[in-house]
Amino acid sequence: MIKYKLIIEYRGTRYSGWQIQSNKRTIQGTIKEALLQLTGETVSVVGAGRTDSGVHALGQVAHIRLEKQMEAARLQRALNGILPQDIRIASVRIASPDFHAQKSAVRKRYLYRMYNGPVLSPFLSGCVHQVIHPLQVQAMSDAAGMIVGRHDFKGFAAAASTVRDHHRTVLVSRFVSKGRDLRYVIEADGFLHHMVRNIMGTLLQIGSGKRAVSDMIRILESRDRRNAGPTAPPQGLYLVKVWY
Amino acid sequence: MIKYKLIIEYRGTRYSGWQIQSNKRTIQGTIKEALLQLTGETVSVVGAGRTDSGVHALGQVAHIRLEKQMEAARLQRALNGILPQDIRIASVRIASPDFHAQKSAVRKRYLYRMYNGPVLSPFLSGCVHQVIHPLQVQAMSDAAGMIVGRHDFKGFAAAASTVRDHHRTVLVSRFVSKGRDLRYVIEADGFLHHMVRNIMGTLLQIGSGKRAVSDMIRILESRDRRNAGPTAPPQGLYLVKVWY
Repeated sequence: MIKYKLIIEYRGTRYSGWQIQSNKRTIQGTIKEALLQLTGETVSVVGAGRTDSGVHALGQVAHIRLEKQMEAARLQRALNGILPQDIRIASVRIASPDFHAQKSAVRKRYLYRMYNGPVLSPFLSGCVHQVIHPLQVQAMSDAAGMIVGRHDFKGFAAAASTVRDHHRTVLVSRFVSKGRDLRYVIEADGFLHHMVRNIMGTLLQIGSGKRAVSDMIRILESRDRRNAGPTAPPQGLYLVKVWY
Repeated sequence: MIKYKLIIEYRGTRYSGWQIQSNKRTIQGTIKEALLQLTGETVSVVGAGRTDSGVHALGQVAHIRLEKQMEAARLQRALNGILPQDIRIASVRIASPDFHAQKSAVRKRYLYRMYNGPVLSPFLSGCVHQVIHPLQVQAMSDAAGMIVGRHDFKGFAAAASTVRDHHRTVLVSRFVSKGRDLRYVIEADGFLHHMVRNIMGTLLQIGSGKRAVSDMIRILESRDRRNAGPTAPPQGLYLVKVWY
Protein backbone atom coordinates (compact mmCIF):
# COMPACT_ATOMS: atom_id res chain seq x y z
CA MET A 1 0.00 0.00 0.00
CA ILE A 2 1.30 3.43 -0.95
CA LYS A 3 0.09 6.56 0.84
CA TYR A 4 -0.50 9.83 -1.01
CA LYS A 5 -1.12 13.37 0.22
CA LEU A 6 -3.60 15.31 -1.93
CA ILE A 7 -4.19 19.08 -1.88
CA ILE A 8 -7.72 19.78 -3.09
CA GLU A 9 -9.42 22.97 -4.21
CA TYR A 10 -13.22 23.06 -4.54
CA ARG A 11 -16.19 25.30 -4.98
CA GLY A 12 -18.67 23.89 -2.46
CA THR A 13 -21.83 25.37 -4.00
CA ARG A 14 -23.20 22.17 -5.57
CA TYR A 15 -22.18 19.87 -2.71
CA SER A 16 -23.62 18.77 0.65
CA GLY A 17 -20.22 19.35 2.23
CA TRP A 18 -17.10 17.22 2.43
CA GLN A 19 -18.29 14.10 4.21
CA ILE A 20 -19.91 11.13 2.45
CA GLN A 21 -23.64 10.85 3.11
CA SER A 22 -25.97 8.42 1.40
CA ASN A 23 -27.95 9.86 -1.54
CA LYS A 24 -26.12 13.18 -1.34
CA ARG A 25 -23.45 14.66 -3.59
CA THR A 26 -20.38 15.30 -1.43
CA ILE A 27 -16.76 16.22 -2.14
CA GLN A 28 -15.36 13.13 -0.39
CA GLY A 29 -17.83 10.88 -2.20
CA THR A 30 -17.07 12.40 -5.60
CA ILE A 31 -13.31 11.90 -5.11
CA LYS A 32 -13.83 8.34 -3.86
CA GLU A 33 -15.88 7.55 -6.99
CA ALA A 34 -13.22 9.08 -9.25
CA LEU A 35 -10.58 6.90 -7.55
CA LEU A 36 -12.73 3.78 -7.99
CA GLN A 37 -13.18 4.59 -11.67
CA LEU A 38 -9.45 5.22 -12.11
CA THR A 39 -7.91 2.39 -10.08
CA GLY A 40 -10.70 -0.14 -9.53
CA GLU A 41 -9.95 0.17 -5.81
CA THR A 42 -12.40 1.20 -3.08
CA VAL A 43 -10.34 3.88 -1.41
CA SER A 44 -10.92 5.66 1.87
CA VAL A 45 -10.37 9.41 1.42
CA VAL A 46 -9.38 10.96 4.77
CA GLY A 47 -9.69 14.76 4.86
CA ALA A 48 -8.01 17.28 7.17
CA GLY A 49 -11.37 18.78 8.08
CA ARG A 50 -15.02 18.34 7.24
CA THR A 51 -16.35 21.39 5.45
CA ASP A 52 -20.09 22.10 5.61
CA SER A 53 -22.51 22.26 2.71
CA GLY A 54 -21.69 25.27 0.48
CA VAL A 55 -18.26 25.87 2.07
CA HIS A 56 -15.25 26.11 -0.26
CA ALA A 57 -11.62 25.04 -0.09
CA LEU A 58 -8.45 26.47 -1.59
CA GLY A 59 -6.23 23.96 0.19
CA GLN A 60 -8.12 21.04 1.72
CA VAL A 61 -5.73 18.15 2.39
CA ALA A 62 -6.57 14.45 2.20
CA HIS A 63 -4.66 11.21 2.34
CA ILE A 64 -5.42 8.00 0.46
CA ARG A 65 -3.77 4.60 0.24
CA LEU A 66 -3.56 2.67 -3.03
CA GLU A 67 -2.77 -1.01 -3.54
CA LYS A 68 -1.08 -0.38 -6.86
CA GLN A 69 1.52 2.38 -6.94
CA MET A 70 0.97 5.16 -9.45
CA GLU A 71 3.28 8.07 -10.26
CA ALA A 72 2.03 11.14 -8.31
CA ALA A 73 1.84 13.52 -11.30
CA ARG A 74 -0.02 10.89 -13.34
CA LEU A 75 -2.50 10.30 -10.49
CA GLN A 76 -3.15 14.05 -10.31
CA ARG A 77 -3.72 14.41 -14.06
CA ALA A 78 -5.94 11.34 -14.23
CA LEU A 79 -8.10 12.46 -11.29
CA ASN A 80 -8.51 15.95 -12.75
CA GLY A 81 -9.56 14.32 -16.00
CA ILE A 82 -12.39 12.46 -14.22
CA LEU A 83 -13.49 14.96 -11.56
CA PRO A 84 -15.97 17.77 -12.32
CA GLN A 85 -14.50 21.26 -12.89
CA ASP A 86 -15.56 22.46 -9.41
CA ILE A 87 -13.18 19.99 -7.71
CA ARG A 88 -9.50 20.18 -8.65
CA ILE A 89 -6.55 18.23 -7.32
CA ALA A 90 -3.93 20.96 -6.94
CA SER A 91 -1.12 18.60 -5.93
CA VAL A 92 -0.32 14.93 -5.24
CA ARG A 93 2.75 13.75 -3.29
CA ILE A 94 3.76 10.37 -1.95
CA ALA A 95 3.39 10.59 1.86
CA SER A 96 5.16 8.75 4.66
CA PRO A 97 3.19 5.78 6.09
CA ASP A 98 2.50 7.62 9.36
CA PHE A 99 1.08 10.77 7.72
CA HIS A 100 -2.57 11.36 8.64
CA ALA A 101 -4.41 14.28 6.97
CA GLN A 102 -6.55 14.94 10.02
CA LYS A 103 -4.51 13.78 13.02
CA SER A 104 -1.15 15.13 11.84
CA ALA A 105 -2.51 18.65 11.19
CA VAL A 106 -1.02 21.25 13.54
CA ARG A 107 -2.56 24.43 12.19
CA LYS A 108 -5.26 25.54 9.77
CA ARG A 109 -6.19 28.78 8.07
CA TYR A 110 -9.75 29.75 7.15
CA LEU A 111 -10.87 32.77 5.17
CA TYR A 112 -14.31 34.35 5.30
CA ARG A 113 -15.12 36.59 2.31
CA MET A 114 -17.77 39.32 2.39
CA TYR A 115 -18.96 41.88 -0.13
CA ASN A 116 -20.20 45.02 1.61
CA GLY A 117 -22.41 46.75 -0.95
CA PRO A 118 -25.76 46.74 -2.71
CA VAL A 119 -24.84 45.10 -6.05
CA LEU A 120 -22.90 41.83 -5.98
CA SER A 121 -20.92 40.90 -9.10
CA PRO A 122 -22.34 37.81 -10.89
CA PHE A 123 -18.79 36.44 -10.75
CA LEU A 124 -18.81 36.48 -6.92
CA SER A 125 -22.28 35.04 -6.43
CA GLY A 126 -22.02 31.90 -4.25
CA CYS A 127 -18.40 32.77 -3.35
CA VAL A 128 -18.89 35.57 -0.83
CA HIS A 129 -21.44 36.62 1.79
CA GLN A 130 -23.10 39.86 0.69
CA VAL A 131 -23.90 42.45 3.36
CA ILE A 132 -25.83 45.43 1.99
CA HIS A 133 -25.78 47.84 4.98
CA PRO A 134 -22.40 49.49 5.68
CA LEU A 135 -20.25 47.61 8.20
CA GLN A 136 -18.01 49.24 10.79
CA VAL A 137 -14.81 47.44 9.87
CA GLN A 138 -12.73 48.99 12.65
CA ALA A 139 -15.07 47.62 15.34
CA MET A 140 -15.03 44.17 13.72
CA SER A 141 -11.27 44.32 13.49
CA ASP A 142 -10.88 45.30 17.16
CA ALA A 143 -13.23 42.49 18.24
CA ALA A 144 -11.45 39.94 16.03
CA GLY A 145 -8.13 40.69 17.72
CA MET A 146 -9.58 39.88 21.16
CA ILE A 147 -9.79 36.12 20.55
CA VAL A 148 -6.11 35.65 19.69
CA GLY A 149 -4.47 33.30 22.19
CA ARG A 150 -5.42 30.08 23.98
CA HIS A 151 -9.06 30.13 25.08
CA ASP A 152 -12.03 27.89 25.75
CA PHE A 153 -14.15 28.40 22.59
CA LYS A 154 -17.26 26.49 23.75
CA GLY A 155 -19.32 29.70 23.41
CA PHE A 156 -18.51 29.76 19.66
CA ALA A 157 -18.89 26.00 19.02
CA ALA A 158 -22.01 24.38 17.56
CA ALA A 159 -24.49 23.77 20.40
CA ALA A 160 -24.37 20.03 19.65
CA SER A 161 -20.57 19.90 20.01
CA THR A 162 -19.53 16.77 21.93
CA VAL A 163 -15.75 17.16 22.07
CA ARG A 164 -14.31 16.96 25.58
CA ASP A 165 -11.91 19.90 25.40
CA HIS A 166 -12.98 23.17 23.78
CA HIS A 167 -9.63 24.88 24.26
CA ARG A 168 -7.99 26.05 21.04
CA THR A 169 -5.12 28.42 20.29
CA VAL A 170 -5.95 31.16 17.80
CA LEU A 171 -2.77 32.49 16.19
CA VAL A 172 -4.22 34.94 13.68
CA SER A 173 -7.63 36.66 13.70
CA ARG A 174 -7.79 39.77 11.53
CA PHE A 175 -9.58 41.66 8.78
CA VAL A 176 -8.22 42.73 5.42
CA SER A 177 -10.46 45.19 3.59
CA LYS A 178 -10.08 46.66 0.13
CA GLY A 179 -13.02 48.87 -0.73
CA ARG A 180 -16.19 46.79 -0.59
CA ASP A 181 -14.22 43.54 -0.50
CA LEU A 182 -13.85 42.42 3.10
CA ARG A 183 -11.89 39.37 4.25
CA TYR A 184 -11.54 37.82 7.66
CA VAL A 185 -8.59 35.47 8.20
CA ILE A 186 -8.31 33.11 11.17
CA GLU A 187 -5.56 30.60 11.95
CA ALA A 188 -5.62 28.18 14.88
CA ASP A 189 -4.17 24.86 16.02
CA GLY A 190 -7.63 23.41 15.57
CA PHE A 191 -11.26 24.43 15.09
CA LEU A 192 -14.54 23.35 16.69
CA HIS A 193 -17.58 22.63 14.55
CA HIS A 194 -19.10 25.91 13.24
CA MET A 195 -16.45 27.88 15.16
CA VAL A 196 -15.43 30.20 12.29
CA ARG A 197 -19.02 30.81 11.16
CA ASN A 198 -20.18 31.52 14.74
CA ILE A 199 -17.29 33.93 15.33
CA MET A 200 -18.10 35.56 11.98
CA GLY A 201 -21.82 35.83 12.79
CA THR A 202 -20.90 37.60 16.05
CA LEU A 203 -18.40 39.90 14.32
CA LEU A 204 -21.07 40.82 11.76
CA GLN A 205 -23.42 41.84 14.58
CA ILE A 206 -20.62 43.98 16.04
CA GLY A 207 -19.95 45.53 12.59
CA SER A 208 -23.68 46.28 12.28
CA GLY A 209 -23.72 48.12 15.64
CA LYS A 210 -25.98 45.49 17.25
CA ARG A 211 -23.37 44.48 19.82
CA ALA A 212 -20.42 45.94 21.68
CA VAL A 213 -16.84 45.00 20.77
CA SER A 214 -16.35 43.70 24.33
CA ASP A 215 -19.03 41.02 23.74
CA MET A 216 -16.30 38.80 22.27
CA ILE A 217 -14.72 38.40 25.70
CA ARG A 218 -18.10 38.01 27.40
CA ILE A 219 -19.05 35.14 25.05
CA LEU A 220 -15.69 33.40 25.56
CA GLU A 221 -16.06 33.68 29.34
CA SER A 222 -19.69 32.50 29.35
CA ARG A 223 -18.83 29.33 27.37
CA ASP A 224 -22.49 29.47 26.27
CA ARG A 225 -23.39 29.24 22.55
CA ARG A 226 -26.62 31.14 23.18
CA ASN A 227 -24.65 34.32 23.85
CA ALA A 228 -22.92 34.35 20.46
CA GLY A 229 -24.34 35.61 17.15
CA PRO A 230 -25.97 33.46 14.46
CA THR A 231 -23.93 31.08 12.31
CA ALA A 232 -22.77 33.13 9.29
CA PRO A 233 -23.80 31.66 5.90
CA PRO A 234 -21.51 29.02 4.35
CA GLN A 235 -20.79 30.64 0.96
CA GLY A 236 -18.24 33.08 2.42
CA LEU A 237 -16.10 30.39 4.05
CA TYR A 238 -12.90 28.86 2.62
CA LEU A 239 -10.51 26.30 4.11
CA VAL A 240 -7.31 27.90 2.84
CA LYS A 241 -4.37 25.92 4.19
CA VAL A 242 -3.41 23.09 6.53
CA TRP A 243 0.02 22.87 8.16
CA TYR A 244 1.72 19.63 9.23
CA MET B 1 -42.01 58.02 -22.34
CA ILE B 2 -38.85 58.25 -20.24
CA LYS B 3 -35.57 56.86 -21.50
CA TYR B 4 -33.11 55.11 -19.17
CA LYS B 5 -29.50 54.02 -19.63
CA LEU B 6 -28.68 50.74 -17.91
CA ILE B 7 -25.19 49.36 -17.21
CA ILE B 8 -25.39 45.58 -16.98
CA GLU B 9 -22.97 42.98 -15.64
CA TYR B 10 -23.54 39.31 -16.45
CA ARG B 11 -21.99 35.90 -16.38
CA GLY B 12 -22.94 34.47 -19.76
CA THR B 13 -22.44 30.78 -18.92
CA ARG B 14 -26.13 29.81 -18.66
CA TYR B 15 -27.31 31.99 -21.55
CA SER B 16 -27.57 31.68 -25.34
CA GLY B 17 -26.06 35.13 -25.67
CA TRP B 18 -27.54 38.61 -25.45
CA GLN B 19 -30.15 38.61 -28.21
CA ILE B 20 -33.69 37.31 -27.78
CA GLN B 21 -34.33 34.01 -29.57
CA SER B 22 -37.47 31.93 -29.27
CA ASN B 23 -37.25 29.06 -26.77
CA LYS B 24 -33.79 30.08 -25.61
CA ARG B 25 -32.68 31.73 -22.38
CA THR B 26 -30.99 35.02 -23.32
CA ILE B 27 -29.80 38.05 -21.38
CA GLN B 28 -31.98 40.48 -23.33
CA GLY B 29 -35.02 38.22 -22.94
CA THR B 30 -34.47 37.77 -19.20
CA ILE B 31 -34.25 41.55 -18.66
CA LYS B 32 -37.32 42.14 -20.84
CA GLU B 33 -39.30 39.63 -18.74
CA ALA B 34 -38.14 41.25 -15.50
CA LEU B 35 -39.30 44.65 -16.83
CA LEU B 36 -42.68 43.21 -17.81
CA GLN B 37 -43.08 41.71 -14.35
CA LEU B 38 -42.05 44.98 -12.70
CA THR B 39 -43.90 47.56 -14.80
CA GLY B 40 -46.53 45.62 -16.75
CA GLU B 41 -45.04 47.17 -19.90
CA THR B 42 -43.62 45.28 -22.88
CA VAL B 43 -40.30 47.04 -23.16
CA SER B 44 -37.73 46.90 -25.93
CA VAL B 45 -34.23 46.46 -24.44
CA VAL B 46 -31.64 47.87 -26.86
CA GLY B 47 -28.08 46.76 -26.12
CA ALA B 48 -24.77 48.34 -27.13
CA GLY B 49 -23.59 45.06 -28.61
CA ARG B 50 -24.78 41.49 -29.01
CA THR B 51 -22.62 39.14 -27.01
CA ASP B 52 -22.44 35.48 -28.10
CA SER B 53 -23.50 32.48 -26.08
CA GLY B 54 -21.21 32.04 -23.04
CA VAL B 55 -19.67 35.52 -23.36
CA HIS B 56 -19.70 37.75 -20.25
CA ALA B 57 -20.12 41.46 -19.61
CA LEU B 58 -18.75 43.77 -16.94
CA GLY B 59 -20.26 46.86 -18.55
CA GLN B 60 -22.85 46.09 -21.22
CA VAL B 61 -25.03 49.14 -21.85
CA ALA B 62 -28.70 49.14 -22.82
CA HIS B 63 -31.44 51.68 -23.16
CA ILE B 64 -35.12 51.21 -22.42
CA ARG B 65 -38.17 53.48 -22.55
CA LEU B 66 -40.92 53.33 -19.94
CA GLU B 67 -44.44 54.79 -20.11
CA LYS B 68 -44.54 55.44 -16.41
CA GLN B 69 -41.58 57.26 -14.89
CA MET B 70 -39.80 55.50 -12.06
CA GLU B 71 -36.96 56.81 -9.93
CA ALA B 72 -33.67 55.44 -11.36
CA ALA B 73 -32.33 54.01 -8.08
CA ARG B 74 -35.69 52.34 -7.38
CA LEU B 75 -35.77 50.82 -10.89
CA GLN B 76 -32.26 49.42 -10.34
CA ARG B 77 -33.12 47.89 -6.94
CA ALA B 78 -36.41 46.43 -8.20
CA LEU B 79 -34.79 44.85 -11.28
CA ASN B 80 -31.98 43.33 -9.21
CA GLY B 81 -34.65 41.91 -6.90
CA ILE B 82 -36.28 40.08 -9.83
CA LEU B 83 -33.28 39.14 -12.01
CA PRO B 84 -31.23 35.99 -11.34
CA GLN B 85 -27.88 36.47 -9.53
CA ASP B 86 -25.89 36.04 -12.77
CA ILE B 87 -27.37 39.24 -14.25
CA ARG B 88 -26.92 42.47 -12.26
CA ILE B 89 -27.94 46.00 -13.09
CA ALA B 90 -24.87 47.97 -12.00
CA SER B 91 -26.38 51.38 -12.70
CA VAL B 92 -29.52 53.11 -13.98
CA ARG B 93 -29.61 56.75 -15.18
CA ILE B 94 -32.25 58.79 -16.94
CA ALA B 95 -30.98 59.31 -20.51
CA SER B 96 -31.62 62.06 -23.01
CA PRO B 97 -34.30 61.23 -25.63
CA ASP B 98 -31.69 60.96 -28.42
CA PHE B 99 -29.42 58.51 -26.56
CA HIS B 100 -29.12 55.16 -28.33
CA ALA B 101 -27.14 52.39 -26.62
CA GLN B 102 -25.94 50.94 -29.91
CA LYS B 103 -25.82 53.84 -32.36
CA SER B 104 -24.41 56.45 -29.94
CA ALA B 105 -21.48 54.23 -28.91
CA VAL B 106 -18.11 55.63 -29.99
CA ARG B 107 -15.74 53.14 -28.45
CA LYS B 108 -15.81 49.75 -26.72
CA ARG B 109 -13.38 47.74 -24.63
CA TYR B 110 -13.26 43.95 -24.60
CA LEU B 111 -11.15 41.74 -22.36
CA TYR B 112 -10.14 38.16 -23.11
CA ARG B 113 -9.01 36.18 -20.04
CA MET B 114 -6.81 33.09 -20.22
CA TYR B 115 -5.30 30.79 -17.63
CA ASN B 116 -2.02 29.35 -18.82
CA GLY B 117 -1.44 26.25 -16.71
CA PRO B 118 -2.46 22.65 -16.08
CA VAL B 119 -4.87 23.07 -13.12
CA LEU B 120 -7.66 25.65 -13.40
CA SER B 121 -9.17 26.97 -10.17
CA PRO B 122 -12.82 25.88 -9.68
CA PHE B 123 -13.55 29.57 -9.09
CA LEU B 124 -12.38 30.47 -12.62
CA SER B 125 -14.10 27.63 -14.46
CA GLY B 126 -16.39 29.11 -17.15
CA CYS B 127 -14.78 32.55 -16.70
CA VAL B 128 -11.46 32.08 -18.51
CA HIS B 129 -10.06 30.08 -21.43
CA GLN B 130 -7.58 27.52 -20.11
CA VAL B 131 -4.46 26.84 -22.17
CA ILE B 132 -2.34 24.03 -20.75
CA HIS B 133 0.83 24.27 -22.89
CA PRO B 134 3.10 27.26 -22.15
CA LEU B 135 2.36 30.32 -24.29
CA GLN B 136 4.99 32.70 -25.64
CA VAL B 137 3.49 35.90 -24.28
CA GLN B 138 6.09 38.19 -25.85
CA ALA B 139 5.24 36.93 -29.36
CA MET B 140 1.52 37.35 -28.70
CA SER B 141 2.15 40.81 -27.33
CA ASP B 142 4.20 41.85 -30.38
CA ALA B 143 1.55 40.51 -32.76
CA ALA B 144 -1.26 42.22 -30.80
CA GLY B 145 0.44 45.60 -31.22
CA MET B 146 0.46 45.25 -35.02
CA ILE B 147 -3.28 45.73 -35.43
CA VAL B 148 -3.44 49.11 -33.68
CA GLY B 149 -4.69 51.78 -36.08
CA ARG B 150 -7.33 52.02 -38.81
CA HIS B 151 -7.49 48.83 -40.88
CA ASP B 152 -9.84 46.69 -42.91
CA PHE B 153 -10.60 43.81 -40.49
CA LYS B 154 -12.51 41.58 -42.94
CA GLY B 155 -9.90 38.83 -42.44
CA PHE B 156 -10.83 38.69 -38.75
CA ALA B 157 -14.61 39.00 -39.17
CA ALA B 158 -17.04 36.08 -39.14
CA ALA B 159 -17.13 34.55 -42.64
CA ALA B 160 -20.87 35.29 -42.81
CA SER B 161 -20.32 39.00 -42.06
CA THR B 162 -22.57 41.13 -44.26
CA VAL B 163 -21.60 44.66 -43.20
CA ARG B 164 -20.54 46.90 -46.06
CA ASP B 165 -17.49 48.48 -44.49
CA HIS B 166 -15.01 46.36 -42.51
CA HIS B 167 -12.77 49.27 -41.55
CA ARG B 168 -12.39 49.77 -37.82
CA THR B 169 -9.95 51.78 -35.70
CA VAL B 170 -8.22 49.79 -32.98
CA LEU B 171 -6.98 52.11 -30.22
CA VAL B 172 -5.63 49.60 -27.74
CA SER B 173 -4.49 46.00 -28.33
CA ARG B 174 -2.23 44.64 -25.63
CA PHE B 175 -1.51 41.86 -23.16
CA VAL B 176 -1.30 42.09 -19.38
CA SER B 177 0.16 38.99 -17.75
CA LYS B 178 0.58 38.17 -14.07
CA GLY B 179 1.96 34.70 -13.58
CA ARG B 180 -0.41 32.21 -15.18
CA ASP B 181 -3.16 34.81 -15.49
CA LEU B 182 -3.10 36.27 -18.97
CA ARG B 183 -5.35 39.08 -20.21
CA TYR B 184 -5.77 40.59 -23.64
CA VAL B 185 -7.40 44.03 -23.84
CA ILE B 186 -8.70 45.53 -27.06
CA GLU B 187 -10.43 48.87 -27.60
CA ALA B 188 -11.86 50.05 -30.91
CA ASP B 189 -14.44 52.42 -32.33
CA GLY B 190 -16.45 49.36 -33.32
CA PHE B 191 -16.15 45.61 -33.68
CA LEU B 192 -17.19 43.13 -36.39
CA HIS B 193 -18.95 39.89 -35.49
CA HIS B 194 -16.44 37.43 -33.92
CA MET B 195 -13.63 39.97 -34.42
CA VAL B 196 -12.15 39.72 -30.91
CA ARG B 197 -12.43 35.92 -30.77
CA ASN B 198 -10.87 35.53 -34.25
CA ILE B 199 -8.00 37.87 -33.36
CA MET B 200 -7.56 35.93 -30.10
CA GLY B 201 -7.61 32.56 -31.88
CA THR B 202 -4.86 33.82 -34.19
CA LEU B 203 -2.81 35.26 -31.30
CA LEU B 204 -3.10 31.90 -29.49
CA GLN B 205 -1.65 30.14 -32.54
CA ILE B 206 1.21 32.67 -32.52
CA GLY B 207 1.76 32.11 -28.78
CA SER B 208 1.83 28.37 -29.41
CA GLY B 209 4.55 28.72 -32.07
CA LYS B 210 2.22 27.56 -34.87
CA ARG B 211 2.40 30.88 -36.71
CA ALA B 212 4.77 33.80 -37.19
CA VAL B 213 4.13 37.16 -35.52
CA SER B 214 4.03 38.77 -38.99
CA ASP B 215 0.94 36.69 -39.89
CA MET B 216 -1.20 39.39 -38.26
CA ILE B 217 -0.33 41.81 -41.07
CA ARG B 218 -0.67 39.11 -43.74
CA ILE B 219 -4.23 38.28 -42.54
CA LEU B 220 -5.22 41.96 -42.44
CA GLU B 221 -3.90 42.47 -45.98
CA SER B 222 -5.53 39.30 -47.35
CA ARG B 223 -8.99 40.33 -46.04
CA ASP B 224 -9.72 36.58 -46.08
CA ARG B 225 -11.17 34.89 -42.96
CA ARG B 226 -9.65 31.54 -44.03
CA ASN B 227 -6.17 32.89 -43.29
CA ALA B 228 -6.90 33.70 -39.63
CA GLY B 229 -6.88 31.28 -36.70
CA PRO B 230 -9.94 29.56 -35.23
CA THR B 231 -12.54 31.50 -33.22
CA ALA B 232 -11.33 31.41 -29.58
CA PRO B 233 -13.88 29.94 -27.12
CA PRO B 234 -16.49 32.32 -25.64
CA GLN B 235 -15.86 31.80 -21.91
CA GLY B 236 -12.75 34.04 -21.92
CA LEU B 237 -14.50 37.05 -23.45
CA TYR B 238 -15.89 40.06 -21.56
CA LEU B 239 -17.53 43.24 -22.85
CA VAL B 240 -15.93 45.61 -20.34
CA LYS B 241 -16.97 49.15 -21.21
CA VAL B 242 -18.81 51.25 -23.77
CA TRP B 243 -18.04 54.93 -24.33
CA TYR B 244 -20.53 57.53 -25.62
